[in-house]
Amino acid sequence: MSYKHNHESHYADNTDKIRQVLAKIKAEAGSHSPSVTTLLQELPQVKIKIDACFLSNPYATDLFLQYFTQEVMGTERLRRMIEYYPSQNRAVASRLASRLALPPERIFLGNGATEIIQAIIHNFCAGKLLINLPTFSPYYEFVRPNTQVIYNHLSKETQFKLDVDAYLALVRKEKPDMVVLINPNNPDGSYLAAAELRALLHELRAVNHVIVDESFVHFAFEDAALSLLSFADLTQEFSNLIVIKSMSKDFGIAGIRVGYAVMSASKVSQLLSNGFLWNISGLAEYFFDLWVRADFFAQYNQARIRYIHETQTFIAALAQISGLQIYPSKANYVLVELINGLSAFDFVSELLIRNGIYTRNCDDKKGLVGEFVRIGARSAEENEQIRQAIQTLCTEVDLRAMTPTPLPLAHK
Amino acid sequence: MSYKHNHESHYADNTDKIRQVLAKIKAEAGSHSPSVTTLLQELPQVKIKIDACFLSNPYATDLFLQYFTQEVMGTERLRRMIEYYPSQNRAVASRLASRLALPPERIFLGNGATEIIQAIIHNFCAGKLLINLPTFSPYYEFVRPNTQVIYNHLSKETQFKLDVDAYLALVRKEKPDMVVLINPNNPDGSYLAAAELRALLHELRAVNHVIVDESFVHFAFEDAALSLLSFADLTQEFSNLIVIKSMSKDFGIAGIRVGYAVMSASKVSQLLSNGFLWNISGLAEYFFDLWVRADFFAQYNQARIRYIHETQTFIAALAQISGLQIYPSKANYVLVELINGLSAFDFVSELLIRNGIYTRNCDDKKGLVGEFVRIGARSAEENEQIRQAIQTLCTEVDLRAMTPTPLPLAHK
Repeated sequence: MSYKHNHESHYADNTDKIRQVLAKIKAEAGSHSPSVTTLLQELPQVKIKIDACFLSNPYATDLFLQYFTQEVMGTERLRRMIEYYPSQNRAVASRLASRLALPPERIFLGNGATEIIQAIIHNFCAGKLLINLPTFSPYYEFVRPNTQVIYNHLSKETQFKLDVDAYLALVRKEKPDMVVLINPNNPDGSYLAAAELRALLHELRAVNHVIVDESFVHFAFEDAALSLLSFADLTQEFSNLIVIKSMSKDFGIAGIRVGYAVMSASKVSQLLSNGFLWNISGLAEYFFDLWVRADFFAQYNQARIRYIHETQTFIAALAQISGLQIYPSKANYVLVELINGLSAFDFVSELLIRNGIYTRNCDDKKGLVGEFVRIGARSAEENEQIRQAIQTLCTEVDLRAMTPTPLPLAHK
Repeated sequence: MSYKHNHESHYADNTDKIRQVLAKIKAEAGSHSPSVTTLLQELPQVKIKIDACFLSNPYATDLFLQYFTQEVMGTERLRRMIEYYPSQNRAVASRLASRLALPPERIFLGNGATEIIQAIIHNFCAGKLLINLPTFSPYYEFVRPNTQVIYNHLSKETQFKLDVDAYLALVRKEKPDMVVLINPNNPDGSYLAAAELRALLHELRAVNHVIVDESFVHFAFEDAALSLLSFADLTQEFSNLIVIKSMSKDFGIAGIRVGYAVMSASKVSQLLSNGFLWNISGLAEYFFDLWVRADFFAQYNQARIRYIHETQTFIAALAQISGLQIYPSKANYVLVELINGLSAFDFVSELLIRNGIYTRNCDDKKGLVGEFVRIGARSAEENEQIRQAIQTLCTEVDLRAMTPTPLPLAHK
């Protein structure tokens, strides 16, 4: 037994262990991916270099950290932020009204969008809940036990684009109390243009509650200038509309836990009357105050536009790789179907173990038939590393397929 | 009209304005006090020097900031904490089990104790809810519309100590589904010793859900060594027991939003199955990890013991001031009844405007008959400033009472 063989055998053992731990912690995380913190703790031997499972604009994180470092660190403000109770929900909302150009009494702030989703579904959904599939799982996971969830299946054959006529037929048949539209949709990135959405909302006037989740809308675009989009002002026109917005992705600050929703003033009052008093942390309050400021927002918008350009370049580059089916996306991620025989688990494990690149295995996503992974765009440099790693993996898989006796993957 | 008169008149106008704004923002904050951040924004002309409305150990804040500055600031860890999703509730709970010496599946983490209170009352209270008065208002404010709240009145004549026999008689009569015991109680600081509480829990075995809120128990003591107390392990003996713990007060980190609860594993599962996925921020996760560490915890315990000694010294000094009725407290605050004719609003306004000291006007607290303020202990030096300011104010009120034509307060 040569040294080399010993070494390879050790590598293979170690890799198998990593794959076992990965499978275990993925199972424990349910319908979400294990966090990088959990990965770092459970798999200290894996060096994570790029987290492309995670969906956020890294340039916006840079910008936030620049302000935070200059204005907060080492100052009395840091102490106040940590020591004291933050302001109450309504007090912070009143300061945000200028940024949203909406009355403050129609703004509800959340400790992340997942808290808002839970609050809205628990408090307002009194009958059937209609959700498009694939989707963001909290929309069906956080329902009360007596809520009946019905699904509208988006089809990969039509690139997950919502078929409005079929959707409306389902609404007429099922008469849901609440419907959820994520736009751009997670995990596929399909997008309904503002004009199409508005026309659809007209047809949905008879539904009691219409949720539009625009968590990824800052990455969407309808004109060459990539003007910032939002559907929040449509709540003025459609009283049944609830617009939910995570700020974790576009602003790159998932660790702070911030999101907001816009809805009728009476709905906001109802939510506030049974809790959500101090759900905004001191750090979140600082972020919200920053977001209202013109200096920060102008720089944010530059970071946003740069990131969209780079994301679309990245997606176009991935589309060149043989063995992948790429679905068009107006979000900051791309849904990729593996059509070269590789499973989603193998794809994710190989990229993680070989390259330290973490991507999203979608085999827990309802409504996806096939082997799907979701890849988030990071910085241009990281995107190129991701592209190269995937290119190498797919080339190897192709070579194996062409060889009469299949080549094993490196460590097998 | 002399310059002096002009000056005084301007001062009086300004003071009246401040009092009006104070009354307005107090009304807007409902049954809580406006935050210091709100005060700073609405009353920039008032310089707040000491926040004795706020209840926390400032030495513990010092300690946290020392660790945070050394370990997080300016490091890659700060970026990770802000950019990435924190770990999920259950993942963090599993790391806390060693500190609590309890199975992780019985630990639920909250974005502050108020979130936990809301979650528990909404999810588990199916009948009447019995609450002692005075209390922490979220316990009755966050109930579902169909929940009937009944009250057990603690009496100032018996220093707000729970009358166990009368309480049990009320329980037998009303048959509540859930009862709430805050120990030490907020806002009066009365305390039921561990042995008394355990005996009471035996008598409450027929009640479906018994909440013991021990948010202030780190400030209580039963022996000369001021050993750390907790009732969390009683959940092993009493399956109907839910122990709730804010960490904002003892650890001086209200801005981070952290708390936890210990209850049956099935209750934790029920809560997690309908939300609370990423309710812990990155900064909160850092705090929880710190709390488990022996080095931090040993230093924390020193800060805790020092603070209890200073708090008790402060309360004893306030008891020497004529015009105040002091109620005994095993918490980090003292409930003070004004028996010199001063209203709680005047007391709070005068201390704020004259001395920049913010105290808690309790005139919104149900179950308090009289003029009550709650004063939180701060550092020893600040406590002395608070004592002096109150001494001066009360002396002036006494002088006024003894004068045939009452002296106006300085600015009236």
